[in-house]
Amino acid sequence: MTIPTPLTGVIPPVCTPLTPEREVDVPSLVRLVDHLVAGGVDALFVLGSSSEAAFLTDAQRRRVVETVVGHVGGQLPVLAGVIDMTTPRVLDHVRAVTAAGAEAVVATAPFYTRTHPAEISRHYRLLAAGSPVPVLAYDIPVAVHSGLPADVVLELAADGVLAGLKDSSGDLAAFRRVVTGARTDAAVTGFSVLTGSELLVDSALALGADGAVPGLANVDPAGYVRLVRLFRAGDLDRARAEQERLCALFAMVGAGDPARMGGGSAALGAFKAALHLRGVIACPATAEPQVPLSEAETEQVGKYLAAAGLL
Amino acid sequence: MTIPTPLTGVIPPVCTPLTPEREVDVPSLVRLVDHLVAGGVDALFVLGSSSEAAFLTDAQRRRVVETVVGHVGGQLPVLAGVIDMTTPRVLDHVRAVTAAGAEAVVATAPFYTRTHPAEISRHYRLLAAGSPVPVLAYDIPVAVHSGLPADVVLELAADGVLAGLKDSSGDLAAFRRVVTGARTDAAVTGFSVLTGSELLVDSALALGADGAVPGLANVDPAGYVRLVRLFRAGDLDRARAEQERLCALFAMVGAGDPARMGGGSAALGAFKAALHLRGVIACPATAEPQVPLSEAETEQVGKYLAAAGLL
Amino acid sequence: MTIPTPLTGVIPPVCTPLTPEREVDVPSLVRLVDHLVAGGVDALFVLGSSSEAAFLTDAQRRRVVETVVGHVGGQLPVLAGVIDMTTPRVLDHVRAVTAAGAEAVVATAPFYTRTHPAEISRHYRLLAAGSPVPVLAYDIPVAVHSGLPADVVLELAADGVLAGLKDSSGDLAAFRRVVTGARTDAAVTGFSVLTGSELLVDSALALGADGAVPGLANVDPAGYVRLVRLFRAGDLDRARAEQERLCALFAMVGAGDPARMGGGSAALGAFKAALHLRGVIACPATAEPQVPLSEAETEQVGKYLAAAGLL
Amino acid sequence: MTIPTPLTGVIPPVCTPLTPEREVDVPSLVRLVDHLVAGGVDALFVLGSSSEAAFLTDAQRRRVVETVVGHVGGQLPVLAGVIDMTTPRVLDHVRAVTAAGAEAVVATAPFYTRTHPAEISRHYRLLAAGSPVPVLAYDIPVAVHSGLPADVVLELAADGVLAGLKDSSGDLAAFRRVVTGARTDAAVTGFSVLTGSELLVDSALALGADGAVPGLANVDPAGYVRLVRLFRAGDLDRARAEQERLCALFAMVGAGDPARMGGGSAALGAFKAALHLRGVIACPATAEPQVPLSEAETEQVGKYLAAAGLL
Repeated sequence: MTIPTPLTGVIPPVCTPLTPEREVDVPSLVRLVDHLVAGGVDALFVLGSSSEAAFLTDAQRRRVVETVVGHVGGQLPVLAGVIDMTTPRVLDHVRAVTAAGAEAVVATAPFYTRTHPAEISRHYRLLAAGSPVPVLAYDIPVAVHSGLPADVVLELAADGVLAGLKDSSGDLAAFRRVVTGARTDAAVTGFSVLTGSELLVDSALALGADGAVPGLANVDPAGYVRLVRLFRAGDLDRARAEQERLCALFAMVGAGDPARMGGGSAALGAFKAALHLRGVIACPATAEPQVPLSEAETEQVGKYLAAAGLL
Repeated sequence: MTIPTPLTGVIPPVCTPLTPEREVDVPSLVRLVDHLVAGGVDALFVLGSSSEAAFLTDAQRRRVVETVVGHVGGQLPVLAGVIDMTTPRVLDHVRAVTAAGAEAVVATAPFYTRTHPAEISRHYRLLAAGSPVPVLAYDIPVAVHSGLPADVVLELAADGVLAGLKDSSGDLAAFRRVVTGARTDAAVTGFSVLTGSELLVDSALALGADGAVPGLANVDPAGYVRLVRLFRAGDLDRARAEQERLCALFAMVGAGDPARMGGGSAALGAFKAALHLRGVIACPATAEPQVPLSEAETEQVGKYLAAAGLL
Repeated sequence: MTIPTPLTGVIPPVCTPLTPEREVDVPSLVRLVDHLVAGGVDALFVLGSSSEAAFLTDAQRRRVVETVVGHVGGQLPVLAGVIDMTTPRVLDHVRAVTAAGAEAVVATAPFYTRTHPAEISRHYRLLAAGSPVPVLAYDIPVAVHSGLPADVVLELAADGVLAGLKDSSGDLAAFRRVVTGARTDAAVTGFSVLTGSELLVDSALALGADGAVPGLANVDPAGYVRLVRLFRAGDLDRARAEQERLCALFAMVGAGDPARMGGGSAALGAFKAALHLRGVIACPATAEPQVPLSEAETEQVGKYLAAAGLL
Repeated sequence: MTIPTPLTGVIPPVCTPLTPEREVDVPSLVRLVDHLVAGGVDALFVLGSSSEAAFLTDAQRRRVVETVVGHVGGQLPVLAGVIDMTTPRVLDHVRAVTAAGAEAVVATAPFYTRTHPAEISRHYRLLAAGSPVPVLAYDIPVAVHSGLPADVVLELAADGVLAGLKDSSGDLAAFRRVVTGARTDAAVTGFSVLTGSELLVDSALALGADGAVPGLANVDPAGYVRLVRLFRAGDLDRARAEQERLCALFAMVGAGDPARMGGGSAALGAFKAALHLRGVIACPATAEPQVPLSEAETEQVGKYLAAAGLL
């Protein structure tokens, strides 16, 4: 299966359910995939940040890709993250995830090292040269501490190096430059411009984005699918109302006490608590060394679900 | 061989020579180790940031540890970095490097993920529980974008979790808190407090540090060894003069044009150019996607070497 | 004259024309105000960041307010920035600008000092208690290096402390929280939610913002007025096209070479060059110590004007 | 009186005692100056960050300079901060403080605006041209969010623009570049290199600094004077012990709860609480909108004083 050009619609970054011993919980992962497919999503993105890819060993990563590809093989496109620090290490992941069946790879800028736009560009050119499947760029400065300049992305798009962008920069104005640039540059064709925001999917679609990769779509895939359909149908008022309902739901990531845990623990802990409360996964555990939500914090997550009509 | 408690003196973070095809250049690595041993260093630290660990594949990392341990086995302690994003992935590296003979491991705080002091503490406790050899903490906010709070380090030292600290924070006042705290807390014994600065080794020793891990010691190990010996002998004026000579030499990291490359490319490119010019390694290549120094920039490095009496 | 509640539409942050000797060029300022009024703007904001308030002496600030209030007095509401580091100094500016006729004041969070949400809240409560006119908050982390948390803004809005928000945070998702919160909280009435972005006015309006304060509206007030009118009329495709034309025009801020000058010099230099090229102001000088645009850079600005149909 | 070239020894940044109504408490300020003089300090620096200059109105700033110059006029050199955002505003302060008798001015890089080394350089050149007294640079990135590059400082020193540097960068390696550069460049004469650190005065002196400007010297001037004298006498062990005693005392800045207040409130609150507990000033109030220490936090400050032998 080759991925559509461009990819459109809702492409959730699939959470990775874990057992209490922190092994990949394959039956829960399969149930989660079924839940997403039933919600009407358009493709799946495994091994992204919301998938706790940064915490999964190489063996666990392989297990995740094999499981998901094995379960929805040919039914939905499966993209896989290849998150690692630099080109040689990322290329090892490219080999592993494509061997396991991934149909596109999603790669961040180099991190840990102090990088430069010229190095970012070289990084993606080498990845594209070494990958048997399309490469999408993943702009996530909160994790890698550098951003992808719009002109670098557009040049790589025009040269056929990049097949798309997942934008988690939080900077909608910069994202707009890529969206508009990709539309107006004749050399760019089939390029997928995807927002990673949970909170601005309607805004991103309005300025021309192709689709969205919201972590919260694990919890409420049908909500995001509905939002995209309302928008495509021109029913902007109801699209905005749906987006606002999802914004209120997203506030669950504030349930975890910031005095006790980092923002990652709180967000992933809330998503997994919600999936557990909704009966999708067997155990809400997050990977080490993340701090788990307390019982009271988990109850708080339940209240957000109830308020959004999901319990 | 077990590592001394505390580790003292000069412990260079060993560069990783590469072939033009970016494979580990084993003969050059052996020559580099010989050059460091001849310079009088006290231990070796492989797979640190100056070793381009962030760029080396797992196979290359293993090759490096096996080569160095095989060559100086029993003669000098060999510490190995286990640089990766989170606990489960770092534990995989701990298994690999200790299987290859490393006598201590050096681990950063979690990165890529948004972390928290409680998670950093949990991370090191899990690493210590899973490691057959001592664990040193590596404070390098420029790479991991969070710092190790002094009180966290001291608590982990008192609990026997950490065997030492390599401080590359650039914040000598915070480092001093750890040095003084480790000295005055009776529960802390044999803890190694090491500065990662090239430029303040004399200052760090004066406030009580045990030793130094300067990347520039690849280029001039004898200089750093002389500096430490002068300091230990109480000849502070000559120690300061030696440090100032090394500060002037370190300016080589500014040879690479910041408009063309990141700070990592410039620093590692300069160290490797210097080792090549000095005849220690066969090829000055740095790993992808780093930008190589130009011919003119390499000449500039040569001038710094000449000014320092090293050519 | 009291300001509308809420303020809506286009409220340009009025540039401050200077003579070659860096005194306020009053005739040019009057012409600029006429140009803005002719463009159809809804109110004027003097002494903001785009007004170079950070560079104007107290005497110059007074001159600006008196000139603008004297010229459009009663015709359009005039808001004035009171940009300074902390409460006592800001209160001095409140006294000065209201004595000169300003009908509302716009204040940032404390800066220079390391601040805290509790101090930000206290700051605005003291300003509101000491101000004879409404106080709007100015969220501009790029200048003050801390952000205004949405919950702090909403609490101050509900308590009647703040009359509005000018958001220059670049974070549309956080802005949305304030917009939605202000709409849904019955305790909040007449609160003005204004975006400071040049590039996302259509997006901000779509999610419920009342108006916009774009620096680029100095150059093309009619464009922003047209954009708002198209949006209000439901003609979203043409509104988006107008916004995209303005986005292309805004690229003029990249004309100044970043190797030679800071981002402020480049942006304000471009706006003033454009106003000079369009014949509105007599001299494009920016305040010291900003670096002026070169002749070639100024020509570049002219090309952006021509491409946008403004020359 | 002209200032010594270079300035040496201990130059406290004098706190500004306030009445409960937040007016300058002149009798307490006089007592504080007497306390500092009795402690043996070498000069006084008013209107610095520790003086809450960012919070003082222009009238209050003038009152402070007049009071201190009037009280110690001719006995000790008095330097004054001219803290404001940009050149024109800083020049207004230069006129005010020199009219009130200041013998040198201390100026930061531009802030609020996004600046550039070329603009920083231009800023200082214009200040020097407009000032009747010597200009010292104040490197304080925690407040102004840009640093003073060592090469810019050294060029301005060689050109006679700057008479000295107060370094509060926290980066001792960068400070060392200025110290060494000023010593080795024949064009630089009489340049004062001063550390603003409370915690590394011994380290700074050892690498060649002329003196120190530690905020904590308000609380224990005699301690810092003793430290400098021990160092100058070559009694390095006792100098280090004195520095360590002062480091332990400095921990008082952690008494204020960071969940309730910013770092500025905590540090200045602790210094003023200590001065109040020691009977030097009548009231520990800090300026608005800073959060005051609680009773329990003030008791905690008292314990640090007692432990350091100061109560």
